[in-house]
Amino acid sequence: MRIAHVAPLFESVPPRYYGGTERIITYLIDGLVELGHEVTLFASGDSRTTATLVPVRDQALRLDPYPLKSQIAAHLAMLDEVRRRADEFDIIHFHLSHFLHFPFFEHMPERTVTTPHGRLDYKDLPGAYRRWPRFPMISISHRQRVPLAEANWVGTVHHGLPLDLYKPIPRREAESGYLAFLGRLSRDKRPDRAIEIARRSGMKLRMAAKVGDDDRAYFHDMVEPLIDGVSIEYLGEIGEDQKADFLGNASALLFPIDWPEPFGLVVIEAMAFGTPVVAWNSGAMHEIVDQGVTGYIVDTVDEAVAAVDKAVKLDRSLVRAAFEKRFSAMRMASDYVAIYARLLDRSSDGPRIGAVAAV
Amino acid sequence: MRIAHVAPLFESVPPRYYGGTERIITYLIDGLVELGHEVTLFASGDSRTTATLVPVRDQALRLDPYPLKSQIAAHLAMLDEVRRRADEFDIIHFHLSHFLHFPFFEHMPERTVTTPHGRLDYKDLPGAYRRWPRFPMISISHRQRVPLAEANWVGTVHHGLPLDLYKPIPRREAESGYLAFLGRLSRDKRPDRAIEIARRSGMKLRMAAKVGDDDRAYFHDMVEPLIDGVSIEYLGEIGEDQKADFLGNASALLFPIDWPEPFGLVVIEAMAFGTPVVAWNSGAMHEIVDQGVTGYIVDTVDEAVAAVDKAVKLDRSLVRAAFEKRFSAMRMASDYVAIYARLLDRSSDGPRIGAVAAV
Repeated sequence: MRIAHVAPLFESVPPRYYGGTERIITYLIDGLVELGHEVTLFASGDSRTTATLVPVRDQALRLDPYPLKSQIAAHLAMLDEVRRRADEFDIIHFHLSHFLHFPFFEHMPERTVTTPHGRLDYKDLPGAYRRWPRFPMISISHRQRVPLAEANWVGTVHHGLPLDLYKPIPRREAESGYLAFLGRLSRDKRPDRAIEIARRSGMKLRMAAKVGDDDRAYFHDMVEPLIDGVSIEYLGEIGEDQKADFLGNASALLFPIDWPEPFGLVVIEAMAFGTPVVAWNSGAMHEIVDQGVTGYIVDTVDEAVAAVDKAVKLDRSLVRAAFEKRFSAMRMASDYVAIYARLLDRSSDGPRIGAVAAV
Repeated sequence: MRIAHVAPLFESVPPRYYGGTERIITYLIDGLVELGHEVTLFASGDSRTTATLVPVRDQALRLDPYPLKSQIAAHLAMLDEVRRRADEFDIIHFHLSHFLHFPFFEHMPERTVTTPHGRLDYKDLPGAYRRWPRFPMISISHRQRVPLAEANWVGTVHHGLPLDLYKPIPRREAESGYLAFLGRLSRDKRPDRAIEIARRSGMKLRMAAKVGDDDRAYFHDMVEPLIDGVSIEYLGEIGEDQKADFLGNASALLFPIDWPEPFGLVVIEAMAFGTPVVAWNSGAMHEIVDQGVTGYIVDTVDEAVAAVDKAVKLDRSLVRAAFEKRFSAMRMASDYVAIYARLLDRSSDGPRIGAVAAV
């Protein structure tokens, strides 16, 4: 199959530092190439890929030091380039969240598919989507669809990671365990809950997290006073190389979020290490965590404290096994291929491919 | 003529507080209606206009308290609505800066015209424009065109204000005069230069300006220490009602900018009061200030000090007269109408209107 992927231009693919969407696109492309497909990636020129790269901007927008950049103009130019070359592909897969590509491909929505990678509870999305109702959409969780339920959803594909990306770390039984918190230290992620859960569990909490500009006041007022450096430790932002040690050696990951998280990549990263998860019953968590196998879903701090006690005793090899079965990059790639094939089958009933077949 | 105006959705038209673009759209529409044209405005629903309003969002984006808003989806929905109704208009005038409307109207660029209201030295604009090279563009100054020189520029229309918006204030000769600085207190606007010019001129400086979040560190380090409350006074942000007193009673306006300002609305606001201007030789200033009549253009602080001495002696009635001749809203509206007519003349040579005429 000739497949084009169209990535947002904010980060390179893969991202130089943080960027969940661009990491997933990388893993998906590698999987599709391994499955033998002909893959083309439209992305910033600083991307590195096993696909054929069509560089549509010299570098990604966010880290480009040029002071005045237009994200709209950059994406418009990319989308025009994709449209010019549309006939080279059987299917064009867009990873843009806010529909900027719709006006460009309204003559051929059936040969496109769109994965929005973010939350969809933006006020303006349903009204805009209603104007382009034929565009096939793939959600990254069932929960993600709720605010845009009326869209033309053609499937859900949970994210996946390469099996060799993270490997379980042999346990150092002598060491006292700790609970891990990884993510932005924002109100939505509820680090305060994580601290309360750890305290009441009598376990140490290690927090590795970025404090964004928007979150500085919250962190200063609500979180920082609770950090004592002994039972509650804050490590700052950690790099990819430190992540393995941090997640792999944790007794459990706490994910006490308070927002409709459409997926939660860190949860499957923890599972890849065999680390169980105690997650709040919010967003897509109940689709990702297998209760009593890879962790526990909870609704209250009381429940979380009880769950930590059980989670740290879960069989880590079974956590890893569940990860391998449900959240591998190859499973993700195969799921997408199945949907592409279904869409192409459908669109071949239409006049376009029909006409070609008649020749 | 049946004219549609398409406004950005960030602010209402007119804006509730600050918003140069939306104020100009208001004055232009009022002028066009007064000239007898049939005008339709696509804008947020909290707009108030003498045109027929097509509300395309319940309220403007910036002050909408809803936490998650998609400016892209909001504008896409608006542009789709404009396209659906395109046949109702002879010409559609876009006030969007970054080309989001181009993909929607590529089948009829000759019946559109675009006024970008901001600076054009964004890295991504020339590359994007080159993909839609037929779209007619109107600049708000000749200087504005420089970074996008190759565009299909069909005219320049300087901004204008209603003649009765601001009126010269009878001079209170007994009062000691002051120099005025009005605008954001940012590095680009060079309040530090204004302070130096005032000091060396031996005149009092009154600064009325907003300090934005981005500018707070600059203001704190570079400007605040120079404010003594006597010779250098800072009034904070002032409202429309205080502006008349502030600009109308000033001996001169200082506009020592250090960026390619595409127009500089406050400069013609000062002129409306008969207040002369001492402006830096930057951006569009030499197109707007008539040397020795409405003020002076300078390149150095030395020149500015000498210019202040001369500017405060200029005949304020001649400043007002120049404003009335060059920067009235009716002149602006007439200029736009002349361009619309020229574009329609051209497009009537084409097949579309020709076909209609043949019926």
